[in-house]
Amino acid sequence: MTMAANTRILLAARPDGPPRPSDFRIEDAPIPEPAEGQILLRVLYLSLDPYMRGRMSAAESYAAPVEIGAVMEGGTVARVEQSRHPGYAEGDIVLSHSGWQTYALSDGTGLRKLDPAAAPVSTALGVLGMPGFTAWAGLSIIGQPKPGETVAVAAASGAVGSVVGQIARIRGARTVGIAGGPEKCAWVRNELGFDAVVDHRASDFAGQLATACPDGIDVYFENVGGKVWDAVFPLLNNHARVPVCGLIASYNARPGDIEGPDRLPGLFRAILTRSLHIRGFIQTEFADRRAEFYREAADWIASGRLRYREDIVDGLANAPQAFIGLLEGRNFGKLLIRVSDENN
Amino acid sequence: MTMAANTRILLAARPDGPPRPSDFRIEDAPIPEPAEGQILLRVLYLSLDPYMRGRMSAAESYAAPVEIGAVMEGGTVARVEQSRHPGYAEGDIVLSHSGWQTYALSDGTGLRKLDPAAAPVSTALGVLGMPGFTAWAGLSIIGQPKPGETVAVAAASGAVGSVVGQIARIRGARTVGIAGGPEKCAWVRNELGFDAVVDHRASDFAGQLATACPDGIDVYFENVGGKVWDAVFPLLNNHARVPVCGLIASYNARPGDIEGPDRLPGLFRAILTRSLHIRGFIQTEFADRRAEFYREAADWIASGRLRYREDIVDGLANAPQAFIGLLEGRNFGKLLIRVSDENN
Repeated sequence: MTMAANTRILLAARPDGPPRPSDFRIEDAPIPEPAEGQILLRVLYLSLDPYMRGRMSAAESYAAPVEIGAVMEGGTVARVEQSRHPGYAEGDIVLSHSGWQTYALSDGTGLRKLDPAAAPVSTALGVLGMPGFTAWAGLSIIGQPKPGETVAVAAASGAVGSVVGQIARIRGARTVGIAGGPEKCAWVRNELGFDAVVDHRASDFAGQLATACPDGIDVYFENVGGKVWDAVFPLLNNHARVPVCGLIASYNARPGDIEGPDRLPGLFRAILTRSLHIRGFIQTEFADRRAEFYREAADWIASGRLRYREDIVDGLANAPQAFIGLLEGRNFGKLLIRVSDENN
Repeated sequence: MTMAANTRILLAARPDGPPRPSDFRIEDAPIPEPAEGQILLRVLYLSLDPYMRGRMSAAESYAAPVEIGAVMEGGTVARVEQSRHPGYAEGDIVLSHSGWQTYALSDGTGLRKLDPAAAPVSTALGVLGMPGFTAWAGLSIIGQPKPGETVAVAAASGAVGSVVGQIARIRGARTVGIAGGPEKCAWVRNELGFDAVVDHRASDFAGQLATACPDGIDVYFENVGGKVWDAVFPLLNNHARVPVCGLIASYNARPGDIEGPDRLPGLFRAILTRSLHIRGFIQTEFADRRAEFYREAADWIASGRLRYREDIVDGLANAPQAFIGLLEGRNFGKLLIRVSDENN
């Protein structure tokens, strides 16, 4: 891959079920020239996140889909290579939304300058970025765990879940993580300090989760769905809160995958009889709380109370395969593509 | 029926599906004698409410079931016939929870004295009682309609729904009622002043509801479920709030009534992509707001902005049949049994 061109990954086809490599197309385009008031960005890191699966589909969602033939969208950390904008100088590092490509133009809209001395710039895409804020907002504003309550967290080794559980612990809750496989479970238990962890691949997963939650579940942070939900559901206590920010288990489902029995009546009965509180959210609706999050999270990272793990894959060309793996849980930690060299 | 005995209606059997008359048993018992510190109450009005169907079943719920052979429970307005309690005098009228019987003892626990000059005492079981407060709390605390938003209300002519819609109008929302049959619909539209009303018995009910909600639905007050939910669900806007206080359409369902397709994945997808907020509640959890409700509701009734309708059936012996009809929507207004004469 030469940096003399702008390498871009486009959406070639809308996936039917799990995305395949042929749903993406890689192409080289000329490096664009900044006009007056614009800057040229060179992408250092591309964040790969489950929500991108939604953007590949034409189905109704909270954001418009990526068009066929358009560059896949995504959060990025980038370096200013040329500036014709008074607010930016060559060498500035910014958080941007440049998508799956090596170069992009910007007029400054939506950019945030990063201080490489304060934290590794890649964390602006993870623990100190959208996933971290999603965790903080969903737990703090919707989940509202009280000391001694039980908080269950799916995808507990992931970019969001790992932060949810650690904040829940900091807030005095008992934290039970759910993760896939012994390596992730060990990390959640030993490195992140969750009170308990259960492997969703275990044959008696539901029974193990019940054992790990002897007092039931007061807050379940839902970012998975599927069989994890089925195991959590009977354990939800009266007045349990369920912030919903993702459903990765069903992102690859096909429209016809709705074989019965119908679980809706049972869910509504439980909502009524157990006064459940289920709320979907997108972190952007809580944007006015972001400064508070940065302050708290930076303190916790500095004091070692909030840990994180990055899973960095080299080269933009590997993004499709890495993304396909993300939807199958094959990453371990916040998944990032190193698009170009930070020190170059 | 002579008043020389305490006539009581007992739960004879747990219903399988819709309750039948044989699920109840009527019997006469001696009128009890108050001990020191107790009062003897003569029931004037018994409230019949959908939640009682839940108490007839052994299934898990927020309250313990009525035992087989026990008196059916229920809210009542009663007159103090004898008092050996310093806080009560003969002739006092109280709100009590005396159940389906003509006489009951009380030591004062949970009673509230009523002022017959302030409002008809029967309203303490309806618009100024548990149903009215359920409406007020669910709408004010969970629904939080903003001026100009659309609030949809099921069972709009009922004890709860009629209050929900009128409060929503007072708060400046556009209010769309759903009721069964032309008579109820006309009353909701013309007497209660809802902006629109749709008959759920119409063959193209879902289409009519969509037409009545051109800007979608921002708050849906759920006390019905079933096909009303199915019609409401696609109309829910981003950030719609759904307070759930009842599911009358499914109270008579049998455990096996869960034929597919499975609607759960579609619901969760909508919770996520439309940031829906679904919350079950029991009015008791908001008890600290009751004084505020009484104040507002009494003002609105006095000024004619909050109207109500009672459906009064004479005689305790008719309670089972009236209750069976309630679950089928055969009542029109707040259903009460006149157990004994208020002026006697």
